[in-house]
Amino acid sequence: MAKPLLKATMLTVTALLAGLACQPDPGATPLPSWRDGPTKSAIVSFVERVTDPAHGDYRAPMERVAVFDNDGTLWAEQPMYFQLAYALDRVRALAPEHPEWASTEPFRAVIEDDREAMASFGMPELMAIIGATHAGMTITDFRTSARAWIDSTRHPHLERRYRDLTYQPMVELLDYLRANGFQVWIVSGGGIEFLRTFSQDAYGVPPERVIGSSTAVEYRVEAMGPVLVKLPKLGSLDDKEGKPVNINLHIGRRPILAFGNSDGDFQMLEYTTAGQGARLGLLLHHDDAEREWAYDRDSHIGRLDRGLDGAAERGWVIVSMARDFGEIFSPGPP
Amino acid sequence: MAKPLLKATMLTVTALLAGLACQPDPGATPLPSWRDGPTKSAIVSFVERVTDPAHGDYRAPMERVAVFDNDGTLWAEQPMYFQLAYALDRVRALAPEHPEWASTEPFRAVIEDDREAMASFGMPELMAIIGATHAGMTITDFRTSARAWIDSTRHPHLERRYRDLTYQPMVELLDYLRANGFQVWIVSGGGIEFLRTFSQDAYGVPPERVIGSSTAVEYRVEAMGPVLVKLPKLGSLDDKEGKPVNINLHIGRRPILAFGNSDGDFQMLEYTTAGQGARLGLLLHHDDAEREWAYDRDSHIGRLDRGLDGAAERGWVIVSMARDFGEIFSPGPP
Repeated sequence: MAKPLLKATMLTVTALLAGLACQPDPGATPLPSWRDGPTKSAIVSFVERVTDPAHGDYRAPMERVAVFDNDGTLWAEQPMYFQLAYALDRVRALAPEHPEWASTEPFRAVIEDDREAMASFGMPELMAIIGATHAGMTITDFRTSARAWIDSTRHPHLERRYRDLTYQPMVELLDYLRANGFQVWIVSGGGIEFLRTFSQDAYGVPPERVIGSSTAVEYRVEAMGPVLVKLPKLGSLDDKEGKPVNINLHIGRRPILAFGNSDGDFQMLEYTTAGQGARLGLLLHHDDAEREWAYDRDSHIGRLDRGLDGAAERGWVIVSMARDFGEIFSPGPP
Repeated sequence: MAKPLLKATMLTVTALLAGLACQPDPGATPLPSWRDGPTKSAIVSFVERVTDPAHGDYRAPMERVAVFDNDGTLWAEQPMYFQLAYALDRVRALAPEHPEWASTEPFRAVIEDDREAMASFGMPELMAIIGATHAGMTITDFRTSARAWIDSTRHPHLERRYRDLTYQPMVELLDYLRANGFQVWIVSGGGIEFLRTFSQDAYGVPPERVIGSSTAVEYRVEAMGPVLVKLPKLGSLDDKEGKPVNINLHIGRRPILAFGNSDGDFQMLEYTTAGQGARLGLLLHHDDAEREWAYDRDSHIGRLDRGLDGAAERGWVIVSMARDFGEIFSPGPP
């Protein structure tokens, strides 16, 4: 009896060890919310090649760096960036303390819900609003405020809370990559501290793997102890050329996979896929007006124009939400 | 026979699992190059408390963030910061291409080896030298150049190459912390890209765990592809107040352990140890003129004055190189 029992036990040990080394269960079908087709095949094939030590495309785990845009890539971004919705709610909440806002643009437009004026907001108005509503807060207070808002506020059209507007196929992809030894990073034009309030819970991405736009921050020692205070001054704009610059600053390695959805991600994909060896660049195309939104070249948010034109020659995969996503949104929390 | 054999095998499995979960071998004495005494006891006690789920000081692995200064903490910094020695060698190497430097300070002093003038260099001169010798290079070329210098150049007094001037007790401490589930980060006033050329090999710290001073960087698409170019402009000075600001930017969590050696590390220790729960702040005191150097309050490099005065009331541990370090330098590469 002894030997077969020992053998069976050792097989169990081997299985346990394989699980602990974070190898994916070969029996499970990866990416269940992705529809079968060329897009899913391209992703799975890439991951299988770079993780197969016998393949010419193999990359050591330390080189398996994957970067993801957030707004429009990991969660929705219509009809306005969710962080802007938060900032507008902050304007309304802070208005009683700022009577001068009643006659000062862009605040007047927000307080009076002047949608025509708000629709014309450009970068200067956004910066003024973010500066006025985020600056002067400590990092701790900002995170508490943003977290409470994300957890409680409902999207105006979708009948879900903002925090439940993550895309299920993307959440599965992050898990699949991590199970295959990838480091998964978020590289967003959104604010780094705003992202950190939900990145761990929503995506399993810890704060040190989040890169985003940032305000300047000041270190102050107050009576209660040292604090970090957000200043009304841009620190870094993590968009377009800013993305590869910040990827180098934070990661210090060129990624081998980049996934975005707009022309703000063009340089991130360009930088990633121009490296030597196997690389994968992907752009999510919002082409599903029925289940989400359809927008690209003419959108004022998440505009995708240069990316659509340049993808073919660069070998980037255009991911169709309508064709490739079996589910769109992640199920709500249990 | 079956049951005892199965039990013995399961014990082996348990041992294997324990090993895979990165538990330290309880039979090994940690920190062999640290002399027994209150300093070593304070470190080991802290690590045992924060890793013991039954202890009130227990911290989950994700919260076990430890930050280390580099110059004067992980490796030597006398008679000048090693990166400055590299920059001066670059001035000499580039001088033929810059005939104007023969009559322009601070370059003239470097080229003529005018030690009196060089001894008086302050921040403006250092910035001018680093700007002129580091700027315009791509990140890739800079790393290649710095790496070649560190690997080949010998320290003027110590008969060792610069790369072999890391402190053995500190290298052991980094290993010990990682074996106990800590994330180990470098937070240095030195240049982030300079550090990344040796941090993995010397300390086991990968590029994404390195925080340092940085120049501004520009993304350019050239004929050969996209490149990142260092600009002659400061991006971030990672010293004093800059350290907690950059810790928040890169890590996004307050560390529970901080180790420095100079007043440039004061705010990093202050920020770290002001947090709630168990915290440990340490300052390495260079008090061993025989085996290394002895300097503190009056040194122009690694000045330690405010830290010596403020340590007691803050509960920071002053680590004496003479008393606590059994060995100073790491053995050279095999």
